[in-house]
Amino acid sequence: MSTTNQRAFNFNAGPSALPLEVLQIAEKQLINFNNTGMSVMELSHRSKDFEQVHNEAIARLRQLYAVPDNYEVIFLQGGASLQFSMIPMNFLQSGEQADYILTGVWSEKALAEAKLFGAPVAVASTKDNHYKNIPSVHQINFNDAAAYVHLTSNNTIYGTQWKDFPTTIAPLIADMSSDILSKPIDVSKFALIYAGAQKNLGPSGVTVVIIRKDLLEKAHNNIPTTLKYSTFTENNSLYNTPPTFGIYMLGEVLKWVEKQGGLEKIATHNEAKAKLIYDAIDGSNGFYIGHAEKESRSLMNITFRLADEELEKQFLAEAKAAGFVGLNGHRSVGGCRASTYNAVPYETCKALADFMHAFQAKH
Amino acid sequence: MSTTNQRAFNFNAGPSALPLEVLQIAEKQLINFNNTGMSVMELSHRSKDFEQVHNEAIARLRQLYAVPDNYEVIFLQGGASLQFSMIPMNFLQSGEQADYILTGVWSEKALAEAKLFGAPVAVASTKDNHYKNIPSVHQINFNDAAAYVHLTSNNTIYGTQWKDFPTTIAPLIADMSSDILSKPIDVSKFALIYAGAQKNLGPSGVTVVIIRKDLLEKAHNNIPTTLKYSTFTENNSLYNTPPTFGIYMLGEVLKWVEKQGGLEKIATHNEAKAKLIYDAIDGSNGFYIGHAEKESRSLMNITFRLADEELEKQFLAEAKAAGFVGLNGHRSVGGCRASTYNAVPYETCKALADFMHAFQAKH
Repeated sequence: MSTTNQRAFNFNAGPSALPLEVLQIAEKQLINFNNTGMSVMELSHRSKDFEQVHNEAIARLRQLYAVPDNYEVIFLQGGASLQFSMIPMNFLQSGEQADYILTGVWSEKALAEAKLFGAPVAVASTKDNHYKNIPSVHQINFNDAAAYVHLTSNNTIYGTQWKDFPTTIAPLIADMSSDILSKPIDVSKFALIYAGAQKNLGPSGVTVVIIRKDLLEKAHNNIPTTLKYSTFTENNSLYNTPPTFGIYMLGEVLKWVEKQGGLEKIATHNEAKAKLIYDAIDGSNGFYIGHAEKESRSLMNITFRLADEELEKQFLAEAKAAGFVGLNGHRSVGGCRASTYNAVPYETCKALADFMHAFQAKH
Repeated sequence: MSTTNQRAFNFNAGPSALPLEVLQIAEKQLINFNNTGMSVMELSHRSKDFEQVHNEAIARLRQLYAVPDNYEVIFLQGGASLQFSMIPMNFLQSGEQADYILTGVWSEKALAEAKLFGAPVAVASTKDNHYKNIPSVHQINFNDAAAYVHLTSNNTIYGTQWKDFPTTIAPLIADMSSDILSKPIDVSKFALIYAGAQKNLGPSGVTVVIIRKDLLEKAHNNIPTTLKYSTFTENNSLYNTPPTFGIYMLGEVLKWVEKQGGLEKIATHNEAKAKLIYDAIDGSNGFYIGHAEKESRSLMNITFRLADEELEKQFLAEAKAAGFVGLNGHRSVGGCRASTYNAVPYETCKALADFMHAFQAKH
């Protein structure tokens, strides 16, 4: 069995670090889950054993976020990318407007998919500022008659994150793939929240959706069965075989979040972790240059460059040699990125900050 | 760690038994994969380590089935149920005919989804015979101008299986979810083969598609990105984050199939396993009654009833108490069903046959 000190300094952007404690539980139960003589993967999705795993995961997520009763929590497949299409397929009519706020590549992709179904409009975009910031809510000209408003709560590629969400007349939909469960949020501000699991929730292959029932009622009917949200809400996400192992892992991650003390504690912890690295950037006298504007900085993805491009290559090479994983920026923008999701330990962030200080001192 | 003798007699219809050897490898590598200091689940899907897992799984599947070069092998999410919609979405025009052969509930569902996109026709159905048989190929009146022909190669609920596939002018599409990799097949007869992984391939959450390039070229363009087959073929199934752990497990199952000696050996083994249970039925003088007609019997799902309904309940209760799992028939039809997929050991089938003999002797 692995020990803690064999663990990589994992800063992957997703799939990403999982809590060691969760992996240890999964390892222990892998072949014989709850004395069933079977792996979780071998259980029928209609068995009592699996249904308990499934329902407990839903209940834990509801409790952690204090999800109001007029919302459903469902598990899907296909990641956020499929949600980009399912949202307009379910909620946007031909010719109808939906408001999209562009804060990066993922919001652009969401907008592009909506164009197949209706008339989405980019009501705000920070592209001209190289997506270094989140737009000011007061400057956005929302269309109150829009089918919905769509935003991306955290932008993995650029390292920006919404701090306060707009209050909108039209139903607010948020892609929270990369900061779900990283802090408390008021679910009641949103009509639909979605997230691929592979950053803060568990392994890839599960998508979590929290959807308000009144939005659900507005959905179109004449669409494929497994692309209708109502198929999932009406069948407790068990219309067809769900990704059972992923849901089990999600449930274990949720237990772990509870054990950390819940979302307030997780948020404080995440702030402290990110501060270590942002301080290394801010205290470097321009040796490290943060990409995001300070007030828009993400606590999940810390993006930076080195002033000297050759030195940047060397930094990434030496970091890799020192056991740091996933520090290269997204292939579309380059630079460096440290993803400090919930499961990345404080010590790992400290190790990176120390490495950054040492590298700077050397050069 | 579990030992072999703690293993359940697992006859689940899917998700179902996995090879113990595969689970043992997964357990061993769960926290530290290939000395990366990370779980497979924690690897970036764009890392060298994961890409090797991914590409090896594709290569192994190609090799086991001798997939010709003019086919692509891709991994998707959403199970067969999403394929029911993706197939007509990609290949069926409004008003255009597609030929569906109905051999059970799953083919009915596939047909129902196609109606949203075009004019599918049930060119054959054995529903009037309670889906006890596979129709005779010579009696099917195919429309050579159809966009495609769709069939379900094995019917989990009724326990029937195609032995020989029709040669069709229109592209032949097969849902092989429940008998993929159970025997050699001539891939070149098909334009598209699809299968949810959770019976013979691995855990739920991965869908395998083998698609001929000329069919791919006929696909419509104006559909959502992640619902287009070409998105997967053009990006080696890495357009967005794939279900990485599921693909890893699939790769390990494929290695295991190789170690068993390949598909010929697997087929012989499956025949011997099924024979144990069919012999218990056929030798019972009507105590056990097989559902499927003999020439249509499935080697994957063995469906039967007891002549006496009360005794059937008792049989299922005693079997459960004796450690047999998953012997209840599908909730839509009742009765008994033993799913004897690749990973179900001969000894497990022998134990069931022995139990059936003993139960009969007692009553």
